[in-house]
Amino acid sequence: MIIDIINKKREKKELTKEELEMAFMGYLKGKIADYQMSALLMAICCNGMSEQETFDLVDIFIHGGKILDFSDLHLTLVDKHSTGGVGDKTTLILGPILASCKVPMVKICGRGLGYTGGTIDKLESIPSFQVSLNEEEIKGQLQKIGLVITSQTKDLVPLDQKIYALRDVTGTTNSIPLIASSIMSKKIVCGADKIIIDIKIGSGALIKTQEEAKQLSSLMIKIGKKYHKEVKTVFSDMDHPLGRAIGNKLEVMEAVNVLQGKEEGELYDLCIELSSQLISMAKKESLQTAERMAKEAITSGRAYQKFKEWIKTQHGKLEELKISAEQYTIKAPKKGIIKKIDALAVGKLSLALGAGRKEKNDTIDYNAGVVLVKMIGDAVKEGEVLAFLYTNRDISHLSFENIFQIE
Amino acid sequence: MIIDIINKKREKKELTKEELEMAFMGYLKGKIADYQMSALLMAICCNGMSEQETFDLVDIFIHGGKILDFSDLHLTLVDKHSTGGVGDKTTLILGPILASCKVPMVKICGRGLGYTGGTIDKLESIPSFQVSLNEEEIKGQLQKIGLVITSQTKDLVPLDQKIYALRDVTGTTNSIPLIASSIMSKKIVCGADKIIIDIKIGSGALIKTQEEAKQLSSLMIKIGKKYHKEVKTVFSDMDHPLGRAIGNKLEVMEAVNVLQGKEEGELYDLCIELSSQLISMAKKESLQTAERMAKEAITSGRAYQKFKEWIKTQHGKLEELKISAEQYTIKAPKKGIIKKIDALAVGKLSLALGAGRKEKNDTIDYNAGVVLVKMIGDAVKEGEVLAFLYTNRDISHLSFENIFQIE
Repeated sequence: MIIDIINKKREKKELTKEELEMAFMGYLKGKIADYQMSALLMAICCNGMSEQETFDLVDIFIHGGKILDFSDLHLTLVDKHSTGGVGDKTTLILGPILASCKVPMVKICGRGLGYTGGTIDKLESIPSFQVSLNEEEIKGQLQKIGLVITSQTKDLVPLDQKIYALRDVTGTTNSIPLIASSIMSKKIVCGADKIIIDIKIGSGALIKTQEEAKQLSSLMIKIGKKYHKEVKTVFSDMDHPLGRAIGNKLEVMEAVNVLQGKEEGELYDLCIELSSQLISMAKKESLQTAERMAKEAITSGRAYQKFKEWIKTQHGKLEELKISAEQYTIKAPKKGIIKKIDALAVGKLSLALGAGRKEKNDTIDYNAGVVLVKMIGDAVKEGEVLAFLYTNRDISHLSFENIFQIE
Repeated sequence: MIIDIINKKREKKELTKEELEMAFMGYLKGKIADYQMSALLMAICCNGMSEQETFDLVDIFIHGGKILDFSDLHLTLVDKHSTGGVGDKTTLILGPILASCKVPMVKICGRGLGYTGGTIDKLESIPSFQVSLNEEEIKGQLQKIGLVITSQTKDLVPLDQKIYALRDVTGTTNSIPLIASSIMSKKIVCGADKIIIDIKIGSGALIKTQEEAKQLSSLMIKIGKKYHKEVKTVFSDMDHPLGRAIGNKLEVMEAVNVLQGKEEGELYDLCIELSSQLISMAKKESLQTAERMAKEAITSGRAYQKFKEWIKTQHGKLEELKISAEQYTIKAPKKGIIKKIDALAVGKLSLALGAGRKEKNDTIDYNAGVVLVKMIGDAVKEGEVLAFLYTNRDISHLSFENIFQIE
């Protein structure tokens, strides 16, 4: 009985695979109620899961749905995952860099529940962009241009989709084994051979400390090994937003800037690091050579060409991408140096502007968002513009005091 | 937001009264979903609650509904609560003993979710017994015969009723602060001045260890003090069933036997202990005098007379109480001494026979249950009858091996 399973986990005992299967597959099939699963998830959050339990759960997640198989294409496929952060548009930049270096990537992404949209929301902000491809279309596009980003379908890890939605509204997101199972099961069913995980650490991220990041990293690498996947992890900072733009269209525009070589800094550096790692794994090149290849993809213009080719292949009209919103400014209340830009505060602000979803069925305003004009370390004068805000909402009730820390 | 409150408790931080109120009153009002409350309850089970949080929760429970007031009767009212166990029919015996000693008791009971019915189910197994009285009827009966047992109404601690039902199906019953809040809020709104709590310890009980029992006891006494209620606790064993009968009608019949002075032993002893404590508290008598009074109530027949008067007042027809079921036996597989009778196993058996509810809306078969013929310490021969089973169900699939341990 489900109560016995919940009680067992509450009492910090290890669950067998049969028990996990009964609970989780029972939930997928609608035999276990939401309120029972949320209690079990909270018990897991509080009391943890052993490695064996985590391996078993991943296996249940994987075999509860469809498993994509691209082995007939004889390609070494790569994939990247980020544990999420404010302003993270690396996928949009990474894909074109890799594909232009002949490292094919197929990436299946979710929509965002959080402060800003997910990768699929960002892509959908490009007029006419087709986010939903079937398996045949994925294969065709992969052979043709070496890059596919498509939305998660209902038959792909359906259990994770259902569990994820429940975790999101029950305060049960912060669990290393649950995070690892969710990410790795999704990566494994998508057929990639080489996987890089960008673990965000900081106030704007799910993972708050280095210690947690290390645990998560080690667990995901072990899970990967079980399925013969090479997994590497990169830790990156998420105390402040990544790059300048937060909001769907705005982030696509910033990605274009990076691909055109117009913007350097943290976002560019992270994209080079992630793509170097994947190029090195896929092509068995040294990290140095791989890094040179990644940088050349940008300087030569090949990555940007690939980006345009990709967007066009998925029917997106890049030339029609324009912001249609009121523009507001945040100005410096005093002179000084910017010490901090709070990722969580910026995330909440962009949500308030309309860039994200509070509830599952909320509509995103693709035009809404924030563009940071000044970055950490910049000197500012009193009254100088720190950020532009774009929104179609009334923002007269919002205050912006907690975003920039100037000293 | 509720997510922030759940997260705070998951992170082992103390919740403010405002946060507890938002979560629990929000749940009562239907603003917080079942799956969110169950996650919060599990976080409380795993991470505990401070004394202040517990006091606050009791206050929220109490003020979320009606508070009974019998002060115009100028009586010193007593009440008793048991944390529940297999075969516990003490209330049925205690009430008549007390009332016949001029110690008035008003007790508001729930139905049972568990292996056997609750006190109200047991009373309802008496043909025509009226379990639901309104406040005027309660007062009238209290003045007339000094004893009222009635069912919980929807306006009495409605929050506890809703939370209790959820805890029951989500593995979140085992929490000292939640147990204490639930019991004490119910006792406090019912208007009793002197309260005794019978804390059951053992395999068949919610509380498994002496240590937990002490914590629960101390917490309940402290809560009582806040509301000017004198609270005492008694610890009693629940590794084996209490008395011989388990099942609704069968337990009423056993209660009659005890009241008629036909049965001594553990059940009788516990009833004497509990009633002595309450008589001593209510009448400010020494425990010795109180004990003599309780025993005399039985030997003189006054307690049994009071029992009959009480059942008649609530329209019950005791003379129609008969078991209508097939009778089966459990026989000794070998010769020896009975070392153990497993309370949990007997509870599960009686549930299988039809004596309890698995789900909220299950129907109880009042005839079903178990009568133990042999008790712990008894010597038995191979093939001798250990217990009678009464049921209207097919029991050919049941096994009884784990109930009696003979050595």
